[in-house]
Amino acid sequence: MPGVERVEGERNAGLRDVCFYEERILSGVDCEGKDSELLCKTMHAWKEAISPHLAVVRENAGVEDAVLLQSLKECLASTFRGGGSGRKDNFWCVIETAGGVASPGPSGVLQCDLYRPFRLPGILVGDGRLGGISCTISSYETLKFRGYDISAIILEDHGLSNETALLSYLRNKVPVLVMPPFPCDPSDDLIRWFSECRNVFIYLQKLMHTAYLKRIGRLHDIGAKAGEVLWWPFTQHKLVPTETVTVIDSRLGENFSVHKVIDNCDFIIPQFDACASWWTQGPDATLQIELARDMGYATSRFGHVMFPENAYEPALHCAELMLGGVGKGWASRAYFSDNGSTAIEIAIKMAFRKFSLDHGIHMETAYDSMGKKMDFRVLALSGSYHGDTLGAMEAQAPSIYTSFLQQPWYSGRGLFLDPPTAYLSNGRWSISLPTALQFRMEKTDDMSFDSFDDLFSWSRESSVLAEGYSAYITEQLSQLSGGSESTHIVIHGAGGMHLIDPAFQRVLVRKCRARKIPVIFDEVFTGFWRLGRESAAELLGCMPDIACYAKLLTGGVVPLAATLATEAIFEAFSGDSKAEALLHGHSYSAHPMGCSAATKAIQWFKDPSTNPNLEGGGESLKELWDGELVRQVSSHFAVRRVVALGTLCAIELRAEGSDASYASLYASSLVRSLRGDGVYMRPLGNVIYLMCGPCTHPHVCRTQLHKVYQAIDRFAQSQPSKLSSTAL
Amino acid sequence: MPGVERVEGERNAGLRDVCFYEERILSGVDCEGKDSELLCKTMHAWKEAISPHLAVVRENAGVEDAVLLQSLKECLASTFRGGGSGRKDNFWCVIETAGGVASPGPSGVLQCDLYRPFRLPGILVGDGRLGGISCTISSYETLKFRGYDISAIILEDHGLSNETALLSYLRNKVPVLVMPPFPCDPSDDLIRWFSECRNVFIYLQKLMHTAYLKRIGRLHDIGAKAGEVLWWPFTQHKLVPTETVTVIDSRLGENFSVHKVIDNCDFIIPQFDACASWWTQGPDATLQIELARDMGYATSRFGHVMFPENAYEPALHCAELMLGGVGKGWASRAYFSDNGSTAIEIAIKMAFRKFSLDHGIHMETAYDSMGKKMDFRVLALSGSYHGDTLGAMEAQAPSIYTSFLQQPWYSGRGLFLDPPTAYLSNGRWSISLPTALQFRMEKTDDMSFDSFDDLFSWSRESSVLAEGYSAYITEQLSQLSGGSESTHIVIHGAGGMHLIDPAFQRVLVRKCRARKIPVIFDEVFTGFWRLGRESAAELLGCMPDIACYAKLLTGGVVPLAATLATEAIFEAFSGDSKAEALLHGHSYSAHPMGCSAATKAIQWFKDPSTNPNLEGGGESLKELWDGELVRQVSSHFAVRRVVALGTLCAIELRAEGSDASYASLYASSLVRSLRGDGVYMRPLGNVIYLMCGPCTHPHVCRTQLHKVYQAIDRFAQSQPSKLSSTAL
Repeated sequence: MPGVERVEGERNAGLRDVCFYEERILSGVDCEGKDSELLCKTMHAWKEAISPHLAVVRENAGVEDAVLLQSLKECLASTFRGGGSGRKDNFWCVIETAGGVASPGPSGVLQCDLYRPFRLPGILVGDGRLGGISCTISSYETLKFRGYDISAIILEDHGLSNETALLSYLRNKVPVLVMPPFPCDPSDDLIRWFSECRNVFIYLQKLMHTAYLKRIGRLHDIGAKAGEVLWWPFTQHKLVPTETVTVIDSRLGENFSVHKVIDNCDFIIPQFDACASWWTQGPDATLQIELARDMGYATSRFGHVMFPENAYEPALHCAELMLGGVGKGWASRAYFSDNGSTAIEIAIKMAFRKFSLDHGIHMETAYDSMGKKMDFRVLALSGSYHGDTLGAMEAQAPSIYTSFLQQPWYSGRGLFLDPPTAYLSNGRWSISLPTALQFRMEKTDDMSFDSFDDLFSWSRESSVLAEGYSAYITEQLSQLSGGSESTHIVIHGAGGMHLIDPAFQRVLVRKCRARKIPVIFDEVFTGFWRLGRESAAELLGCMPDIACYAKLLTGGVVPLAATLATEAIFEAFSGDSKAEALLHGHSYSAHPMGCSAATKAIQWFKDPSTNPNLEGGGESLKELWDGELVRQVSSHFAVRRVVALGTLCAIELRAEGSDASYASLYASSLVRSLRGDGVYMRPLGNVIYLMCGPCTHPHVCRTQLHKVYQAIDRFAQSQPSKLSSTAL
Repeated sequence: MPGVERVEGERNAGLRDVCFYEERILSGVDCEGKDSELLCKTMHAWKEAISPHLAVVRENAGVEDAVLLQSLKECLASTFRGGGSGRKDNFWCVIETAGGVASPGPSGVLQCDLYRPFRLPGILVGDGRLGGISCTISSYETLKFRGYDISAIILEDHGLSNETALLSYLRNKVPVLVMPPFPCDPSDDLIRWFSECRNVFIYLQKLMHTAYLKRIGRLHDIGAKAGEVLWWPFTQHKLVPTETVTVIDSRLGENFSVHKVIDNCDFIIPQFDACASWWTQGPDATLQIELARDMGYATSRFGHVMFPENAYEPALHCAELMLGGVGKGWASRAYFSDNGSTAIEIAIKMAFRKFSLDHGIHMETAYDSMGKKMDFRVLALSGSYHGDTLGAMEAQAPSIYTSFLQQPWYSGRGLFLDPPTAYLSNGRWSISLPTALQFRMEKTDDMSFDSFDDLFSWSRESSVLAEGYSAYITEQLSQLSGGSESTHIVIHGAGGMHLIDPAFQRVLVRKCRARKIPVIFDEVFTGFWRLGRESAAELLGCMPDIACYAKLLTGGVVPLAATLATEAIFEAFSGDSKAEALLHGHSYSAHPMGCSAATKAIQWFKDPSTNPNLEGGGESLKELWDGELVRQVSSHFAVRRVVALGTLCAIELRAEGSDASYASLYASSLVRSLRGDGVYMRPLGNVIYLMCGPCTHPHVCRTQLHKVYQAIDRFAQSQPSKLSSTAL
């Protein structure tokens, strides 16, 4: 990409004094003999021919990235609206950047990163000189590794046939065009050169047009085609008409770029990924690009390599970071698998073995005199969700997910406790006690608090609560027959977005410990800053024997899960034979791609130099959801309860009967309206939620939540009858 | 990296006439005043200052990549052995490449790719001129995306402070050194410049030394550290002493680079990954680099995005390729998940629903008058293995993996048939009939064949076999009580590396069809050319209702699985409510990284321009394991049976009793000895196997198999007593 031309011209009052702006219009006829107009705008320029980031300093003429992008966006929009000539039917826009693809822009951010939110198709101006093959290939790769598509490469001929080497490298998939050499004489007006180039430029234009049509055509078709060949999980296809399919062209940081046709015109529109793509996402734009480099490196250096009895840097480093972070103070071993569900299956197997060992159960004693096998059960929380494979489902209370229709083998091999939940309503934090507990405890009038922290402190200190919790849990535990059970404890039942009172969980852990029941924390959802701490166990102030992690573990690029365990759990598998080892593993166990991504993400999120949201000496995230606005939402008459903690803001709408069920379509119109506002949501029955990354700027959170508040208000107005009755 | 110097010098007789080779020795004192010697070798040079790949043509002086690498390797080895001076204790080797990092080498292969097998740490000579920031960053990325580590960047000062921008981009993680400007006067002898540079070069040397020590230190520690914090799957840690841990520094194509200390010296040694890293690997070096670019692109363009009700290019393209490939002619929907085990759980859920629908079973009729739930069972093959999650395990016959010790919840919810297996022994292919079938069928004398194809044709045509199979299966099926079962059919029981007679499987499929029992093919192991066809179903000549794929699906870089299904299966989930949909999904369902890798790998393997092993119009792979050598192995007295098909060559050693079990350490010494020969193996009890990729050159396969043959021979000699008794 040739350097920007410096032209002394009209100054744009909107920019600082020394930045130049020029607009020129040339009229003529195009190659088909039709009237044509060329509008040239130099949007920003500096006097000295140096990198913009230096010129900014030397000429004291900075342009902020946001301002530059906004002015470019407006320029494109005005051209689209007709520009100078009013022609809308046939026009071309070419943005020429300054310097090389990775030259810094005015702020110092590389231009390939700066313009990435637009992800416009690129023409790479290559280099036909000696050394130009390498330079062109590297530039091409820099663009590809930023997620750009390149329609063509064009270069000046220096008689070295660089295009041949380039085409071979590109496997003929990107056209390479050659221009005749530039005239050496500086007084040459280039007219002759341009006429020599005519066919090259006509061909280039054709290529750009073809690439455009192909891209747009594919974007138009993709929704319908997807509906024909994909089988989406948790989706009743009959309820998804083609036009409601979201066509995602790309993502950058917290935002999708979504293709939409409005008034017969094609648009690529940003949408905030408010469900963090099933709670996996954490990266901002900078981390995403860093992860891209790490993923390329990990693929080239390792691809995947066999794990058992082998050691390689990414797996070891990732394990060390986990044990020194979320596992600090208790865990000594990392067992890798692919997703939360498999991590839970592994955890359950670990717990069974440890329980068997501690309680003297072995193959011989596992069967009674009638040959009936000992029945191991887990102790878990109602409403919790630990994954979809059978073993993980058996540790969940019966629900729509475990019905006969879904998996006839499910039997629910657990004792499921009803936990107390904490929530915000009408601006106050309260605890909701399940029936079994209400019965047991005296009605305490003042159980509402200004903040979650206040509620948390109170519940931790309250002897009334502690006694009630203790009595309930003891009674439940007594139902387990003689110690033949393992336990499985949930920190946070992700299914319904309920926040369980930490004090209750602490009592439960203590009671299990006393009975030598291994304790598993399912941190698949809560781990890695989801709830404002690296590990949600920190909120409880007690440690598990086993814990499961996935989702945010890799910063949200590839599947990877880990089950951490104490040395005592690990030792339960020690023996003289392989038969005693834990015989569970997946082919991609500890795959270097996942471990590399995790290594980067774990460090990125907890480093104050990359995560400005850290506070309290790096222990916790600052408040991301504006407290006042959250209280306002919780006070809206259409809202029943809110949970805002860490990166999560879940809002339960008032709804009754089937409207409040998982399969309910109650929130559909609300979600649709928010998508129109640039917020991508997916409801869980009558619960909607916003989720950001650990590094997301609180300002972004506020903007999104404000949109949600307004949309809820519109939604409530649109169905007053339903809501007025339930609000009573 | 500056251009290669052209020097007229001594010619190397080993190379072609016009390639130049020069060796010069300079003596002096080093910076600490000690005697020092500089040995300069110009290994290859051409007359004209153009890219080597052009010079090769113009000067008719080619050097093959293999020759170039070999001569470089020998040069490094001779330097290590003492070179000219005999000094071994303190020496430095610097390889200066020609042109830019991505300049073509003599063969046209880019130099960054050409030298990748060595993966030497790099010093990048950057560019301090205008435009140099971009050029340096792009070159750096090109190297990182090839899996190189860069110890430092060094550039010439042009007063533009390029180093500041570079350090900011690199987050200060790679040092950037600045040299004073080169003298402009061409007659300058550079002595003064060198003395100005003295401190820079001393610092550079220190950096290289530090980087070296850090790397070597880590490689020394990694085995022991891994043994302390990792929990390897399927591994009895007590049986893995630190010194037996394989330290993998990197992989390229089919080979690991393994760190070894021999005689107190550090070596990085190639090892052929003969277990294809748990059967996941397919890429050759070229595909691996292509995948690296695609992984970087996919991370930057998408990272991960939410799947349900959304459409994005990689997921759609991957589904289209699968449906048009392995699913051609039967499948119409792709359901994505993370690994083979989850793909199987999904398949089972699909089959249950379809079976229920076809047999009029629904929630109300699923319970008998006593409230007992209908017992769904699968029909599967003994010895098969479908993954480690509970649902997948329930579809497997009892084994060491499903024991009470491993998972007390396992009950084995299936009817397990004993299948006939095909194998090669003493140079002849035969079928081994299980007891139940032997009893049923007349002993046919001539059941041995020259080739698998001959055996295959015969078993397909033999009416004796067909009747025997049919009777056995009918009898087994009659044990299923009244149609309350779904079925689950294995093509290939990967656990024991058995090859099941395709004719048997065909009969089984036909019988299930007649009873409206849905048929699942587990192609997790066999899919994507493992057995020489894109889908192993092609070997059977019949199609499933549901099939599962994983492992090679992504070419072996990241976990991804897919369950394909017919439209009839899909329709069984159609309804007016979400409750009827298939409520199973993982957060990273259809993650763009996996789908992009799969898209590249699927196309690469079936394209004759990228996979030279294709034959029969692209339908099948040519014979990869030398037929004669395979027969020879099968005739060795220490070998019981061999299965060589497609990319697999499995060898069952003669062993008795516990030596033949999964937990047996029988083959350990053989495997250890092969690792010394550069073949990385992992035994399955008394079975060892070699596995290559679909593009691996048959010559490579032959070399590895030959090593195995020799090792088996040594192994047999070392324990003659055991073998002579079992050989009788």
